[in-house]
Amino acid sequence: MFIAMNRFQVAKGSEEEFEQVWAERDSQLDKVAGFVEFHLLRGPEAEDHTLFASHTIWKDRAAFEDWTKSEAFRRAHAGAGSRKALYLGHPQFEGFEVVLEGN
Amino acid sequence: MFIAMNRFQVAKGSEEEFEQVWAERDSQLDKVAGFVEFHLLRGPEAEDHTLFASHTIWKDRAAFEDWTKSEAFRRAHAGAGSRKALYLGHPQFEGFEVVLEGN
Repeated sequence: MFIAMNRFQVAKGSEEEFEQVWAERDSQLDKVAGFVEFHLLRGPEAEDHTLFASHTIWKDRAAFEDWTKSEAFRRAHAGAGSRKALYLGHPQFEGFEVVLEGN
Repeated sequence: MFIAMNRFQVAKGSEEEFEQVWAERDSQLDKVAGFVEFHLLRGPEAEDHTLFASHTIWKDRAAFEDWTKSEAFRRAHAGAGSRKALYLGHPQFEGFEVVLEGN
């Protein structure tokens, strides 16, 4: 199992608009091989931003990487750069392999 | 749903020992009200460390906070400070609320 997270430092006051953009997007992820589950997470607040993270579970790293090279990925991210900037800097990507599960 | 993550910068060469410590711990989490699922994640490598994150899913933030005040939590963390340092600095805690789920 592989978890792909993208961390966004969302400008204070833009949190609801940021959530709205995600709620309204048409990801088509459910049609992608190896996709398991998506969550948008709201994390701790800092002085100038609120941390958000997209959190996508994949069967394995290969499934995620195949998706990033696909036409579906390109379409899902078209226009992302042309929207009003709701977050500071660039999203920070982190990919995680599950090494233990249970309790 | 609430995700509690603790990020560890594990020193290069200590990764297997770090995983072993987690594999052998006796967390008793499965007896705690509101606990859903635990994963240990291995993330990207930097020059001097490999990022790991503990990733625990809770019913809600209150369930997590109740656990941190419990005797079970105290017992689970007893001795954590006395072990050989496998990671740089202190773990960094981040708590996340799930704001969207689906795809």
